[in-house]
Amino acid sequence: MSNKNYCIILAGGQGTKLWPSSRVDCPKQFLDLGDTGRTLLRHSYDRFLRIVPKENILVVTAEKYAHLVQEQLPELAEENLLLEPYGRNTAPSIAYANYTILKRCPDARVVVTPSDNLISSKEEFADTVRKVLDFVGENDYIVTLGIVPTHPDSNYGYIQMTGGKDSMNSPVPVKVKTFTEKPDKEIARVFLQSGEFLWNSGVFIAPADTLRVEMEKNKPEVTRLFAGWQTTLGTSFEKDYIYRVYTECTSTSFDYGILETTERAWVQPCPFSWMDVGNWSSMYDLYPDKDDNDNVVLGAKKIMLDSRENIVVAPHGKLVALKGLEHYIVVDTPTALLICPRHEADVKQLTSALGLPEFEEFK
Amino acid sequence: MSNKNYCIILAGGQGTKLWPSSRVDCPKQFLDLGDTGRTLLRHSYDRFLRIVPKENILVVTAEKYAHLVQEQLPELAEENLLLEPYGRNTAPSIAYANYTILKRCPDARVVVTPSDNLISSKEEFADTVRKVLDFVGENDYIVTLGIVPTHPDSNYGYIQMTGGKDSMNSPVPVKVKTFTEKPDKEIARVFLQSGEFLWNSGVFIAPADTLRVEMEKNKPEVTRLFAGWQTTLGTSFEKDYIYRVYTECTSTSFDYGILETTERAWVQPCPFSWMDVGNWSSMYDLYPDKDDNDNVVLGAKKIMLDSRENIVVAPHGKLVALKGLEHYIVVDTPTALLICPRHEADVKQLTSALGLPEFEEFK
Repeated sequence: MSNKNYCIILAGGQGTKLWPSSRVDCPKQFLDLGDTGRTLLRHSYDRFLRIVPKENILVVTAEKYAHLVQEQLPELAEENLLLEPYGRNTAPSIAYANYTILKRCPDARVVVTPSDNLISSKEEFADTVRKVLDFVGENDYIVTLGIVPTHPDSNYGYIQMTGGKDSMNSPVPVKVKTFTEKPDKEIARVFLQSGEFLWNSGVFIAPADTLRVEMEKNKPEVTRLFAGWQTTLGTSFEKDYIYRVYTECTSTSFDYGILETTERAWVQPCPFSWMDVGNWSSMYDLYPDKDDNDNVVLGAKKIMLDSRENIVVAPHGKLVALKGLEHYIVVDTPTALLICPRHEADVKQLTSALGLPEFEEFK
Repeated sequence: MSNKNYCIILAGGQGTKLWPSSRVDCPKQFLDLGDTGRTLLRHSYDRFLRIVPKENILVVTAEKYAHLVQEQLPELAEENLLLEPYGRNTAPSIAYANYTILKRCPDARVVVTPSDNLISSKEEFADTVRKVLDFVGENDYIVTLGIVPTHPDSNYGYIQMTGGKDSMNSPVPVKVKTFTEKPDKEIARVFLQSGEFLWNSGVFIAPADTLRVEMEKNKPEVTRLFAGWQTTLGTSFEKDYIYRVYTECTSTSFDYGILETTERAWVQPCPFSWMDVGNWSSMYDLYPDKDDNDNVVLGAKKIMLDSRENIVVAPHGKLVALKGLEHYIVVDTPTALLICPRHEADVKQLTSALGLPEFEEFK
């Protein structure tokens, strides 16, 4: 493993689309959603442990989630846990981590990753990331991992490659032509048929200095706030400095603000399976282990009579007895219970009735 | 209050028809079913506090429920808590308590009551019981309180009065003609129309010595086991004695074994409202406070969208969010969750799949 390879795990998202399991005080990256024995954050961390040295993995999260990260990643060194006083979307998070890395290693190469995806092919993923890290060692590009799509999903972002459909099997990154955020179903179908589009996994790889240059060029109003960070880092003024930065900074998405405007956006087509659990309905669709009546049951001990095609999530070992229920979402937590039809998986109507904040996630 | 008036509260039932709220380790008499702040047992006890002296109220329950009774009735004296090592239905429970009372007061009058009913008219109930206690002071009868029926319910027992429909308004007890346990719906309808039938409340009142005589005559195989009880009572052999009695005794219902065969069964028609919460469906039907969409919600904080005519029971303050659910039973406890259609309220199919014992309750 090269000591110049770094990883930034973004773990500050506050999504409530998986309410009531995900809540403002415990968003989905901190949950063991697939009942695997590990949280999504832990999965992400373990995924990168085999790619970059442990001391080179940084986690950026909100101050209020510090205890969750520390619980779930007890081996994470204090200086690798970057705390944000306020959520300002991904651009400030990445700037914060990237300037920190550049002080340690000016010619670092970084992988930036969300912490709430599931990737099944660990080896293939690791091989691809390593290959692209090598690639950006030679090329000043920002290379996103693009997943070969399997169905016309309107919940994902799409990346169009240059070079037409031949690029789909390219073993090396290709230049990006366009980005499209969550198209409607019909357009997603056209994208899929064209063979030129990939799903945006949210994972991208670049030389740290290329990231710096592109951010300073495209979002100077963000990066100028960090101008004194490298001299402050390691002093007793760190915390005050970051407070000031986040107080002044406006919410800025890295995807919208930098990736979609830079000339240096490339993409590596990846054939492995990947899932972004956007809501309970996609969790149902994506989850591979269904019972004889096509129910997905996570955590619960179950008894089901005349019940099919439900997704049931409950605390580990809790007994759930269903009779005559079909196509429903049942999510039980110690403090809340959700029961709603699977086709109405957008729980925003319910969570806004609850006064929960809008869904905001790293893009 | 006469010092000769006693009360026997039967609190050993193990019903699981209100599963998962009622469980073998916490049957319904120990639950605050209507979210009233008091359990059904506590309601029963308080109901009799205004009728008989506190030191004359005895509770019979299973050993395994002793801690629940002590928690819920902390003022109950130790000698008034009669513990049964095994459940043997109501006849042994009543014999146990009645011989105990007879040793204290040979000319006592007793009220025997289940602990799992709800009675709304406390004053009317108290007046009626007092009046019947006076009545049995003069008459050696066993007088059951019969509730004037309001609908043809096939979950209740029925008592036919002598004297035809004129007896319905009788201010004093009338002789019983027949007992019918849970008739089918059609027969219940005929009973209701006849005007000669009352619901069996399970509450009956008699001179203790009349109870003794009738039990010894109709169920000598039970009463002979208690032959040495009065001399053992107050010695260090009490517990051993009761163990032996219950080991040898077979399960015997007071209703079937004594009340339906004795010549001394009378009944007092009572116009007040009474409910036996037999299952979740009857709980829904009987519960007076429904919301605008005819939902019954107990315990839970709720958010409901497009949901109607459900009964939702959850731990106090738990948030329950329902969308698009109609005519369902939702019962959430810390260890189990039940969701089933209201018209399939008999959860026996589910509880037997769970390996829970058959429903057995004092009749």
